[in-house]
Amino acid sequence: MDVIRSQGPAAALRAALAAGLIALTPVGAVAEGAPPIENFALDNGLEVVVIPDHRAPVVTHMLWYKVGSADEDPGKSGIAHFFEHLMFKGTAEYGPGVFSARIADVGGRENAFTSYDYTAYYQQVAPDMLPEMMAMEADRMTNLVLTDDVIGPERDVVIEERNSRVENDPRSLLSEEVSATLYQNHPYRIPVIGWMHEIEKLNREDAIDFYRRYYAPNNAILVVAGDVDAATVRRLAQDTYGKIARGPDLPPRLRPTEPEQNTRRTVTLSDERVGVPSYSERWLVPSYTTAQKGQAEALDILSEVLGGGVRSRLYQELVVRQGIASSAMAYYQGTSLDDTMFMVLGSPRGEATLEDVEKAIDAEIAKIVADGVTEEEVEKAKMRFVRSMIFARDEQDGMARIYGSTLATGGTVEDITSWPDRIRAVTAEDVKDAATRWLDERRAVAAYLLPKE
Amino acid sequence: MDVIRSQGPAAALRAALAAGLIALTPVGAVAEGAPPIENFALDNGLEVVVIPDHRAPVVTHMLWYKVGSADEDPGKSGIAHFFEHLMFKGTAEYGPGVFSARIADVGGRENAFTSYDYTAYYQQVAPDMLPEMMAMEADRMTNLVLTDDVIGPERDVVIEERNSRVENDPRSLLSEEVSATLYQNHPYRIPVIGWMHEIEKLNREDAIDFYRRYYAPNNAILVVAGDVDAATVRRLAQDTYGKIARGPDLPPRLRPTEPEQNTRRTVTLSDERVGVPSYSERWLVPSYTTAQKGQAEALDILSEVLGGGVRSRLYQELVVRQGIASSAMAYYQGTSLDDTMFMVLGSPRGEATLEDVEKAIDAEIAKIVADGVTEEEVEKAKMRFVRSMIFARDEQDGMARIYGSTLATGGTVEDITSWPDRIRAVTAEDVKDAATRWLDERRAVAAYLLPKE
Repeated sequence: MDVIRSQGPAAALRAALAAGLIALTPVGAVAEGAPPIENFALDNGLEVVVIPDHRAPVVTHMLWYKVGSADEDPGKSGIAHFFEHLMFKGTAEYGPGVFSARIADVGGRENAFTSYDYTAYYQQVAPDMLPEMMAMEADRMTNLVLTDDVIGPERDVVIEERNSRVENDPRSLLSEEVSATLYQNHPYRIPVIGWMHEIEKLNREDAIDFYRRYYAPNNAILVVAGDVDAATVRRLAQDTYGKIARGPDLPPRLRPTEPEQNTRRTVTLSDERVGVPSYSERWLVPSYTTAQKGQAEALDILSEVLGGGVRSRLYQELVVRQGIASSAMAYYQGTSLDDTMFMVLGSPRGEATLEDVEKAIDAEIAKIVADGVTEEEVEKAKMRFVRSMIFARDEQDGMARIYGSTLATGGTVEDITSWPDRIRAVTAEDVKDAATRWLDERRAVAAYLLPKE
Repeated sequence: MDVIRSQGPAAALRAALAAGLIALTPVGAVAEGAPPIENFALDNGLEVVVIPDHRAPVVTHMLWYKVGSADEDPGKSGIAHFFEHLMFKGTAEYGPGVFSARIADVGGRENAFTSYDYTAYYQQVAPDMLPEMMAMEADRMTNLVLTDDVIGPERDVVIEERNSRVENDPRSLLSEEVSATLYQNHPYRIPVIGWMHEIEKLNREDAIDFYRRYYAPNNAILVVAGDVDAATVRRLAQDTYGKIARGPDLPPRLRPTEPEQNTRRTVTLSDERVGVPSYSERWLVPSYTTAQKGQAEALDILSEVLGGGVRSRLYQELVVRQGIASSAMAYYQGTSLDDTMFMVLGSPRGEATLEDVEKAIDAEIAKIVADGVTEEEVEKAKMRFVRSMIFARDEQDGMARIYGSTLATGGTVEDITSWPDRIRAVTAEDVKDAATRWLDERRAVAAYLLPKE
């Protein structure tokens, strides 16, 4: 059970990349040349995506709800994530812990996560267990038992989770206030896990209201990847999810949008728990869902050329050449229902100060704005992006996540399959234009994480 | 028709004071020793306050609605203020402009204003005109004609108002983003006039919905000050407002509150239209409505000692002694339904820089935190506050505003009448404690208005 602060698989993967955990996998990485994806809907509105992958006897079963923290009512921050926890508390048929115990018994894996735009539940098991997983997942879509006995203790769990992940982590505390500064109107300014004082007030009524409003087949996407065929999935889906009545029609997910921004802002947190200081800067930019044609793809390539890895400009200049930074990267959170952020960050090394890192990062951006990037850089970035699809194909649940998160943020299967061609169409001029248009120092939020003075 | 960015009469008066327009009148200034105030309610829930003042044959008639911009639905910013404009567009009985023309014909004055927490309409006329004013004001509480013919052109008027007051004024643009930074969750982060992109979408349905929800006798306060007695006002109110049916019961005005803040933030606007640069700093503090006993009063005295006028520390130190500032002041926006802000500001003079002004202001605050203030300063500040009531008594509409704004932000008549005693109870220690507790540099928003580099 996880809070995803960043949105979409690319963000999660990029974060993991930053932490040195995995190799690069960009936004919308797809299975080019992989077996055909099947995409259909049940009569009750449940959208289904089947991604065949017969290399191993494993299936990944994911159910995505098109509701995340940015859909919460004002004052109810944290309900989406709290509700994700409650989904594990049992139904009349399968009591508390029964679903999870069953998965463990058969050697499967499970997880769940909540983001700004979606909430997802996932199990990875042997193919013969798929019918049971679907039955149990469908069961908790409508039959959850939500008594006060369940609500109170689980709220305490979430409060404890917030304590350990946020209150005790200056980086997270800073990050929350940076978002609250970058977004002046849009609910992305509110942390996915919720603000403590609002989590503390969440109650049974809030949970039931949320459940009735958002947990319904016509607000969900079923993604099944692995050693199974579409016909089987369709039949199983009919027998399980298909029995559930369509829920109320939800209005379009139109959240308040950002006003024009005219200022440069800074956010500084000094805390005795900070070991390594760090600098970051964020800009409000369009997402794959809100961008005009080609804009998001250009931002993806810009993030890659500027700070996408050890071959990027930031890394080469700050870490390798100047030796002033221990890390330096850029990152574009493209998979997002609404306007999103582009971010650069770095930490000083040795005698270098945070200001040195800031200046060096700004200089690299200014260089791109002034002189653009080379064709060679763009081609290499594209190649790395497109090649990353091959790695993505190797990750069954990675693929499932890409489809789920794209569809849950307003994208289509076609958006995913056409993505490599759209990436290939990005030119060096597009990248320069993106930097010039979006990475404007006068409309940015810089953040400083400092040890206590 | 006015947008009040600041809340309550003290704020408006302090702003006027800052502009050198008027003498000091603090929060909750009251008519100590003035004729008895009458306060009663009609059966339909309309609260009535009568403030007799027989020195001149004039009455001030104000109708306050307990709805302001902070009550707007997400994405509908500006509807409260837009609606204030629509209130002048005429009813079936009194067509567009008839009400205003009538006031002008009889040599009266009128105005209206929208703030975060309330919207008010006001006429000042000879006593014999009061019945007609009440009839016409009551009429537009329910009989407004809201056709698309009215909505579209008036929305253009508001857009033009925003263009001239905000878009063309760097100071206002900065101020908006400062509020959006200081308030991370509470709707005070949203400008009263609304954000342009949201104003542009306001439509007839929004207006009608807003009207039906908020414009009703049980959500309004009638304040009549002047040459009239309570019995007459009661009878007239019965004959006019008393005929209107009670509206729907509204839920308590519980807006999302602020999370704990842990960071220092800055907001910088550089604009070629800026002549004189300026510095300001703001803190989130309790209001008279949210404060514990004595806290708001201490903040009021702190603002007075620190920067309430030419005898204040900031003025004496920065303007008189060091000569580095052309202005320097402090200001506490105490009349507010929810947590509010304390602010200091200054502009450099001569060779001095914004940084010099910032440092000097910070030093004055640090001095109070370290050494406190003198008994003499506190006593003089109290005396000025209490004495200001005498001036307030001289301003018939000022008194009406104080009652209206206090009652519309959750206060009572008793809160106003007891205010002088509560101010007299503030000690030097309370003032030091207030500075220490609230004016924390680590949880503040500093703003820089700069000419284009």
